[in-house]
Amino acid sequence: MKKVVLAYSGGLDTSVAIKWLQEKGYSVVALCLDVGEGKDLDFVKQKALDVGAIESYMLDVKEEFANDFALKALQAHALYEQKYPLVSALSRPLIAKKLVEVAEAEQAIAVAHGCTGKGNDQVRFEVAINALNPDLEVLAPVRDWKWSREEEIEYAKQNNIPIPIQLDSPYSIDQNLWGRSNECGILEDPWATPPEGAYELTASLENTPDVADIIEIDFEKGVPTKIDGKAYRLDQLIIELNILAGKHGVGRIDHVENRLVGIKSREVYECPGAMTLLKAHKELEDITLPKEVAHFKPVLEKKLTELIYDGLWFSSLRPAIDAFLQETQKSVTGTVRVKLFKGHAIVEGRKSEYSLYNENLATYTSDDEFDHDAAVGFIKLWGLPTKVHSMAHNKKVNA
Amino acid sequence: MKKVVLAYSGGLDTSVAIKWLQEKGYSVVALCLDVGEGKDLDFVKQKALDVGAIESYMLDVKEEFANDFALKALQAHALYEQKYPLVSALSRPLIAKKLVEVAEAEQAIAVAHGCTGKGNDQVRFEVAINALNPDLEVLAPVRDWKWSREEEIEYAKQNNIPIPIQLDSPYSIDQNLWGRSNECGILEDPWATPPEGAYELTASLENTPDVADIIEIDFEKGVPTKIDGKAYRLDQLIIELNILAGKHGVGRIDHVENRLVGIKSREVYECPGAMTLLKAHKELEDITLPKEVAHFKPVLEKKLTELIYDGLWFSSLRPAIDAFLQETQKSVTGTVRVKLFKGHAIVEGRKSEYSLYNENLATYTSDDEFDHDAAVGFIKLWGLPTKVHSMAHNKKVNA
Amino acid sequence: MKKVVLAYSGGLDTSVAIKWLQEKGYSVVALCLDVGEGKDLDFVKQKALDVGAIESYMLDVKEEFANDFALKALQAHALYEQKYPLVSALSRPLIAKKLVEVAEAEQAIAVAHGCTGKGNDQVRFEVAINALNPDLEVLAPVRDWKWSREEEIEYAKQNNIPIPIQLDSPYSIDQNLWGRSNECGILEDPWATPPEGAYELTASLENTPDVADIIEIDFEKGVPTKIDGKAYRLDQLIIELNILAGKHGVGRIDHVENRLVGIKSREVYECPGAMTLLKAHKELEDITLPKEVAHFKPVLEKKLTELIYDGLWFSSLRPAIDAFLQETQKSVTGTVRVKLFKGHAIVEGRKSEYSLYNENLATYTSDDEFDHDAAVGFIKLWGLPTKVHSMAHNKKVNA
Amino acid sequence: MKKVVLAYSGGLDTSVAIKWLQEKGYSVVALCLDVGEGKDLDFVKQKALDVGAIESYMLDVKEEFANDFALKALQAHALYEQKYPLVSALSRPLIAKKLVEVAEAEQAIAVAHGCTGKGNDQVRFEVAINALNPDLEVLAPVRDWKWSREEEIEYAKQNNIPIPIQLDSPYSIDQNLWGRSNECGILEDPWATPPEGAYELTASLENTPDVADIIEIDFEKGVPTKIDGKAYRLDQLIIELNILAGKHGVGRIDHVENRLVGIKSREVYECPGAMTLLKAHKELEDITLPKEVAHFKPVLEKKLTELIYDGLWFSSLRPAIDAFLQETQKSVTGTVRVKLFKGHAIVEGRKSEYSLYNENLATYTSDDEFDHDAAVGFIKLWGLPTKVHSMAHNKKVNA
Repeated sequence: MKKVVLAYSGGLDTSVAIKWLQEKGYSVVALCLDVGEGKDLDFVKQKALDVGAIESYMLDVKEEFANDFALKALQAHALYEQKYPLVSALSRPLIAKKLVEVAEAEQAIAVAHGCTGKGNDQVRFEVAINALNPDLEVLAPVRDWKWSREEEIEYAKQNNIPIPIQLDSPYSIDQNLWGRSNECGILEDPWATPPEGAYELTASLENTPDVADIIEIDFEKGVPTKIDGKAYRLDQLIIELNILAGKHGVGRIDHVENRLVGIKSREVYECPGAMTLLKAHKELEDITLPKEVAHFKPVLEKKLTELIYDGLWFSSLRPAIDAFLQETQKSVTGTVRVKLFKGHAIVEGRKSEYSLYNENLATYTSDDEFDHDAAVGFIKLWGLPTKVHSMAHNKKVNA
Repeated sequence: MKKVVLAYSGGLDTSVAIKWLQEKGYSVVALCLDVGEGKDLDFVKQKALDVGAIESYMLDVKEEFANDFALKALQAHALYEQKYPLVSALSRPLIAKKLVEVAEAEQAIAVAHGCTGKGNDQVRFEVAINALNPDLEVLAPVRDWKWSREEEIEYAKQNNIPIPIQLDSPYSIDQNLWGRSNECGILEDPWATPPEGAYELTASLENTPDVADIIEIDFEKGVPTKIDGKAYRLDQLIIELNILAGKHGVGRIDHVENRLVGIKSREVYECPGAMTLLKAHKELEDITLPKEVAHFKPVLEKKLTELIYDGLWFSSLRPAIDAFLQETQKSVTGTVRVKLFKGHAIVEGRKSEYSLYNENLATYTSDDEFDHDAAVGFIKLWGLPTKVHSMAHNKKVNA
Repeated sequence: MKKVVLAYSGGLDTSVAIKWLQEKGYSVVALCLDVGEGKDLDFVKQKALDVGAIESYMLDVKEEFANDFALKALQAHALYEQKYPLVSALSRPLIAKKLVEVAEAEQAIAVAHGCTGKGNDQVRFEVAINALNPDLEVLAPVRDWKWSREEEIEYAKQNNIPIPIQLDSPYSIDQNLWGRSNECGILEDPWATPPEGAYELTASLENTPDVADIIEIDFEKGVPTKIDGKAYRLDQLIIELNILAGKHGVGRIDHVENRLVGIKSREVYECPGAMTLLKAHKELEDITLPKEVAHFKPVLEKKLTELIYDGLWFSSLRPAIDAFLQETQKSVTGTVRVKLFKGHAIVEGRKSEYSLYNENLATYTSDDEFDHDAAVGFIKLWGLPTKVHSMAHNKKVNA
Repeated sequence: MKKVVLAYSGGLDTSVAIKWLQEKGYSVVALCLDVGEGKDLDFVKQKALDVGAIESYMLDVKEEFANDFALKALQAHALYEQKYPLVSALSRPLIAKKLVEVAEAEQAIAVAHGCTGKGNDQVRFEVAINALNPDLEVLAPVRDWKWSREEEIEYAKQNNIPIPIQLDSPYSIDQNLWGRSNECGILEDPWATPPEGAYELTASLENTPDVADIIEIDFEKGVPTKIDGKAYRLDQLIIELNILAGKHGVGRIDHVENRLVGIKSREVYECPGAMTLLKAHKELEDITLPKEVAHFKPVLEKKLTELIYDGLWFSSLRPAIDAFLQETQKSVTGTVRVKLFKGHAIVEGRKSEYSLYNENLATYTSDDEFDHDAAVGFIKLWGLPTKVHSMAHNKKVNA
């Protein structure tokens, strides 16, 4: 019997998909991944079997997700359209990779995902899977069956698939270490204020503590390694920051974004740890990267961000951009002091053994070592093209 | 007697410069401009005469500054190194322009500014002046005399130049409608937290109101025109927002930046109105600009920002970039609702008659008009290059 | 009866399409456009009627094509992947525009084109038509019928559609003022040398004259206006240059390119006039544009080129880029002397009343007006970041 | 006695500099490098001693120049302002490196170069030397002495410095493996045709053979390794191509360029080997790089080219860009067939085991494997934003 590996979340869609795929003649292997969404995954693993999967995997990939995906986004200051830190876009290629690995181990002929036909994630899954193993068939049951919500529930009831209690939630959620995304419901009106119920990881500003937490984050070659001097594995450090910064309401994002599939959608994100790290990392770069690197790196950051958003993680452009970024991170070592308060992660101080900030050049005190006379010659040549242009055109005008 | 027009601020440096230029054989015309720094400029105008200027001009250029300079920065989302909204860099070309105009009217042979030899402003002034009238000589007395602070004060005393009382201020300040910049003193250590005394336009987070102000800002073709339905001239609108948003602590920026003259310096800025408008304007663009415009405009924004920072306002590249930007602003009309609270300017809602957000395409309800089947073909072609690459390289590897 | 306007070329595909559309219940209006392909279009116009069209239009749009499309490509130095001057990609939006205009005048409910499913042109047509009139249905008979060549010929015979004599040509040709493109046949092997039969507008190098033609081309604000002092309408000037430069073998291009639809294809182009103008225009810019414009303009050129190639002519990004380009063209006035010889269009001289080349600054003779001392200060500040970096890192290494 | 290492060319300027430096109290070590300029360097080495150097080094750095400098320019398709392949700009950092190495070995306190004050090379030398050893003093005797040509010759005569016979040459030449640059004299008029005497490495078109040479060049991971199957060390391969392609007149460039120091200058270059390799390498990339790499790599190419031109070889941005480029070169392996004829290096065929050109996808024959139906969905989503824009704006207009 032909075998398919299904990315299984435990929700209604993928539970129904198990049954639906069986009816199409597949035996279904469920694959449930822990990317840091904080759910009870043993329960999910068991549920897959209960619903009819012949096998159910639960893999903790938090560390791999942190090191190979979230870290790349951090070092690239990845904010799609200057706002969205690529939460779901980062987990999709990892899930695709695991689907392919399990499919190859299980000698499955197909993999399946639970995406609909109008989101970005279907693209990310399918392009990634095709890149990793072009021989695997990719199934998208939810996109194929085209049922209304009511029809799906009816099918579930007939097939003894448990209906989740929070089914009437107006939201569609995805979550991992790097943050939580939320769409649908009232959010579909971009004039409406997102209701408090849309948020879970972050306190509302009104409910944040009146006393700040001030923390120090250490980086080694662009990798955050310690909080207040205590070393953490990267995934644990992000989780810790999600709690710390979330308490202070850091990292709420409300974004009307351009999807790859040609429409604008309005999404709400919460990324307390990610936003704190992004700020801190940028400030450390501000003192350690030379100007020409600091001014050109954003060009690659933007490209990488769009590449990942657009589902091209496994394009050979990504390792090329990554090679550039890794080279820039060699001196991004140092400490950043961050004040978490009232929704802000304020960098108040930064230091590095590789700092290019030179107090004796910058100072306006008598310790000044800067050559003030050099400026005269500099300005003369810097402004020469503009001056020649002016002379050439005035001559014309006056003639 | 040869005549020079001096950009006069009323401070010690330019007051001493009047005398110093006289000793060099110039008669000095003082030019004092109101770009929104909120000082008593009649006093300044008189002071120039008292110190020895043969004539003293005071021009209110706030409206021109708002329309021709600050607005361009707003529409370009100009943030140098993603942080600094170009406060001083915007006023310099306007001051240069006025210096040249007055010099030509007064038949002066030279203009003068009070910059030292290590800042960006000397470059901005001199390149701009050369562009506008290459025949005018440019003098930089403060850069030339190379006195210590003590020597300068001694000279002032001997020449009956009044010493300002706040002379022992540790800071060097520049201010206009678009914000306030502050450098020197304790700020020269990038690990040190800026002291409260460094700020003036914004309340500290600890002292902000516990109740938010929620305002609506209207834009017409990219120009902010109203607050809560009340029309303002642009310079007045910015001043109004500086007060409103400043009260809530919006717009403090602490930045280690790369100067044009080759050094890093640490600056503190306060831009309550500017930061509020920048946020609101970007969000209105998010619903009114098509994706390809939204994704390419930042390339021109970055270039324009660096061009302005680097003193090339009067380069012919600027009107070319501006022509691009003006074309994009044609549909940036609508209303943005902003919550001012605890240092944040949070956009909670945005609407426009030109909105490209289409609820019937974006919705996950039964009103969905999006063609889900189209996605299958789209993904196939979108991912085809990656798939062909994979096939070509796997073939190689397996062979 | 529902009416469709078909872009008609006179070839087998679109002739068969007339009949096929009739069978689907449409009355067919044929639209034949003269974009400079040098065919007998009166014959084509009549053929449409003979095959069954209820009406047949023949419009000479050469002047509009030259002014509104080819000229934009010229001023943008549009070379897709640095090689292909956008021949077909430029005519498609114009044809789409005319299809829509005729459809609206004729109260047709649909328009149709003769593209297959794997080229770029289907995308260009359909996106353009949708942009101009989203209510019009777009039909693609050739893509839909999925016949083999043999089946198509059989259908033609049964329906008394004349079979063109050059039907056994191994090539697929498209031509307009801006050049001629050729694909298929032996060209599908990228290791094979294109046979001489693939070319028509250009002499082979072996058959070019042994005496050069040296011509002078005048430009006014970026528009080529004269050859050797004689004024031409732009479309006529391009045609004239196609002949002149074609005789000398200028403008053969052999390109393996990345299509929008995800595949690489190998194409052969001939663009004698276009390549001559592109070279001449660039050289005139080299003396009239200031450095910062010359170095940034290519960024917009590349974007515009890809936008046009990708079928997004009617995106609002195009007028924005065009506004930038028009601003840069204001001083691109002058004369370029070009030697046409052995496949080359060699610019041997260029002059302009707006030239920024200043012999007194550039010279190494005693007329030199350049300030050599200024270089010392310039170098000091230009190299300061690199020096500080070196000091910071050496200190580290040696410590 | 304080020691200086002088970059010595054997010409009048640097010969005079030896004496001049001695008079300033330095003992002079001459350093003569063979970067492939094809001069008799043993003679030059001896001449330095004759003129007064205490020591004279002659180092053959052709291989290092080819591998570490010219190859980087090749892989980056480095053409400054789309025309100039960075001939001199590439050798300057290598010369600076050797100057510093010899200075450190010889315990010299200074290094010296023979540049004037208005060229790019002074910047390149000084920034590079400062980056490599900020403690070394850099002397620029020719820039400092400010003599007219006559005064310099007079000084040479008085000091028994031999006057080169070709001194009355109107040209200023620099040459290495990657090409030959020429400025001054008649070339200073950009309207004048360069005289034949300005060229040396290339035949005039009028004197090229009437029979083409067709060669095959093999590349391994972006490195040219063989010509017609015969392996060469890279520097030897370039020299071989300079002869082969030079005979056919390939690689003449006539360029009005924007110097770093703010002026435009007109230069003539000959780069037969470089231009042949640049064309061949690009064409191999055209079949081996995926579209997204091919379309983004030019952004880094342009930056690297400007960085090198601007003397920032030793900036830490260069290794970062290089890391990107190296990653892209991994699959640039294959063979390119080039026809050298009448000034052209025409790529007629290209093949690679990593070719992404897939004949079964590209073909218009019955072997076609491309999914034509996928195009329909692709176009629908690709054009959706433009369509939505059109609908939103038409609605407005019609309302």
